[in-house]
Amino acid sequence: MINEQYKKMLEGKSVIRELSEFATARGKEIGYENVFDYSLGNPSVPVPEKFTEVMIDLLKTKSSIELHGYSPSLGIASVKEAIADSLNRRFGMDYTGNHIFPTTGAAGAVAHAVRCITHPGDEVLTFAPYFPEYNLYINMSGAVLKVVPADTENFQINFEKLEEMLNEKTAALLINTPNNPSGAVYSGETLTKLSELLMRKQKEYGHDIFIISDEPYREIVFDGVEAPYVSKFYDNTLSCYSYSKSLSLPGERIGYVAANPRCTDAELISAMCGQISRGIGHNCPPSIMQLAVAEVLDLTSDMSIYEKNMNILYKELTDLGFSCVRPGGTFYIFPKALEEDAVAFCKKALKYDLILVPSDTFGVPGYFRMAYCIDTEKVERSLEPLRRFVKENY
Amino acid sequence: MINEQYKKMLEGKSVIRELSEFATARGKEIGYENVFDYSLGNPSVPVPEKFTEVMIDLLKTKSSIELHGYSPSLGIASVKEAIADSLNRRFGMDYTGNHIFPTTGAAGAVAHAVRCITHPGDEVLTFAPYFPEYNLYINMSGAVLKVVPADTENFQINFEKLEEMLNEKTAALLINTPNNPSGAVYSGETLTKLSELLMRKQKEYGHDIFIISDEPYREIVFDGVEAPYVSKFYDNTLSCYSYSKSLSLPGERIGYVAANPRCTDAELISAMCGQISRGIGHNCPPSIMQLAVAEVLDLTSDMSIYEKNMNILYKELTDLGFSCVRPGGTFYIFPKALEEDAVAFCKKALKYDLILVPSDTFGVPGYFRMAYCIDTEKVERSLEPLRRFVKENY
Repeated sequence: MINEQYKKMLEGKSVIRELSEFATARGKEIGYENVFDYSLGNPSVPVPEKFTEVMIDLLKTKSSIELHGYSPSLGIASVKEAIADSLNRRFGMDYTGNHIFPTTGAAGAVAHAVRCITHPGDEVLTFAPYFPEYNLYINMSGAVLKVVPADTENFQINFEKLEEMLNEKTAALLINTPNNPSGAVYSGETLTKLSELLMRKQKEYGHDIFIISDEPYREIVFDGVEAPYVSKFYDNTLSCYSYSKSLSLPGERIGYVAANPRCTDAELISAMCGQISRGIGHNCPPSIMQLAVAEVLDLTSDMSIYEKNMNILYKELTDLGFSCVRPGGTFYIFPKALEEDAVAFCKKALKYDLILVPSDTFGVPGYFRMAYCIDTEKVERSLEPLRRFVKENY
Repeated sequence: MINEQYKKMLEGKSVIRELSEFATARGKEIGYENVFDYSLGNPSVPVPEKFTEVMIDLLKTKSSIELHGYSPSLGIASVKEAIADSLNRRFGMDYTGNHIFPTTGAAGAVAHAVRCITHPGDEVLTFAPYFPEYNLYINMSGAVLKVVPADTENFQINFEKLEEMLNEKTAALLINTPNNPSGAVYSGETLTKLSELLMRKQKEYGHDIFIISDEPYREIVFDGVEAPYVSKFYDNTLSCYSYSKSLSLPGERIGYVAANPRCTDAELISAMCGQISRGIGHNCPPSIMQLAVAEVLDLTSDMSIYEKNMNILYKELTDLGFSCVRPGGTFYIFPKALEEDAVAFCKKALKYDLILVPSDTFGVPGYFRMAYCIDTEKVERSLEPLRRFVKENY
């Protein structure tokens, strides 16, 4: 009577996890400092000190009954209002607290958003390269994920393919900018074109097409790059955010869905998320995390290290002859492998203690991802084995 | 394209929430200290000081990157082992960390457990009176909740009705002892009889029947009462626990599923929970909460106040002529209303600023629930209006 669907899921091993396990085992042999582990997107910079201070202050000064008591089922009102105010101030939006639903990170946000605006059998389109966990968020909701092939030129949007794939059953587009794994940031031009296309298609099909905008990397944008706020371009947008990366809090599971006040049934989205949340028994994110994050909404960790690492790697990779789109943000870079089979390529790299992730699970063959949320010193030490790897194999 | 199922759920208002809103509004009029709000099961005693100390210590001494980093997807190994050890020590079990899956409270635990061991269309039986959120946990998983009528004599199990309702489609029984709303604690005799019946039925049907044991009130048991550990009685048991009540942490959403090491596919349950969790984007409970709770596993808040309140109310209610099963634990009492229509009864009580919850949503007509997790002083002050209410109406 064990559920066969979930049991079967145990068979599919995550490539990223396997690599990470290899790195751990190898680290035990030769010292973890000698393994150049570019596999995991775990922030490597401390949380802002102010966050820790706020947490300690809450614990010391607030009544524990109040502090740790049940959050209202749609989130703590003052927190929702603070998030709305911050977004309005920064992006010229006009959210109220009622448009905000606190979630367990962007993962929870996307999983809730897709349930809000799809019915079983509906199609959700995403763009390669894409975060492989989308398969689970979408397919377990009953909707069907379809992947639009990549624009490998710039990792913007392949509009030709998108137009071919849009159809009556399309309920939503799931986009991710700044992008994991490519590091690309959608330009204002891309978003304008996307918005115009979707508005035309909504009319043509006579129903809504939502954008679910997965934005955990929104604050990690490099010098000279602008990251436009997606919801400004298209009313039917649900923005999914996480403090995992901007505040280096991935384990604390805190983020939100923000429904554009002009989207269809905008005033219902948060309440519907609450119903979905009840059913999975997930309810709200921890009360103390809601309260603490609300005090540091406009802060981020010091993320300059990511840009420093990116610059070092981008220069080295292009010097070595890799074809590579320069990342506009995130802590990922996504070069073309030096042979067609990216898995074979990454396996060879293991011999040099370089842990690279082949691109196949991201929906594009022939590339690899490096997550450079590691110490700069280690990035620098990895260049020599990287050179040797290339020289001795290609 | 808004999902109609979730939209429709917005129409069904929670009676408990409505009462609580009335209480808040009335509190603004006459002062909240004058509203005798027995509606909500929100713990009223502080967390153990040690918990707060542990939290502050983690924040002050641990590297923030490590402290707030991603939890492994099946929970932090040391935390899982500590929970297993504590259960083994206290209940003579033989769990390992691999049998434990940390969840967002007992709600998350039950919602995960039911998905693990049912397929869509399977039946899950529960016993009236029962916690109404079970409807959501079960029905949103695709299984079907069926309610076995109450044993109104003692709020143990109505075995006659249970035998009638067990059938080939029964995948699980969802039980809750100590019980919300009745306060009853299943005796060893009840659990032995239940176990024997289920073992017989498993053979008859040729498939597993699991017990999902919802145990958030396990530590709130009154003098002279024993609360046997359900999983000791029946191998195919998934125990669902929450620290919400025992540590007064309801807002922090922390608990677990513990799979009996002898249940079918025991070694898969935690891993399957991990897959279910990925799909809803809920992942693990907050890292800091997992770590903090692991340091205070054998502590509880001072819960003697609940027993004190129970004794005061039980005496007064029986003196006033209410028929009432004496609670063995929890912070609820569930007397028979003085008229058939419990909703009408509770509405009349509102005129005396007594907020009582009619039993209809718990699956038994004609009773009412009082949640006495409030100050003893307030319980005492409520006795006079309670007397007036009874005298003037019945």
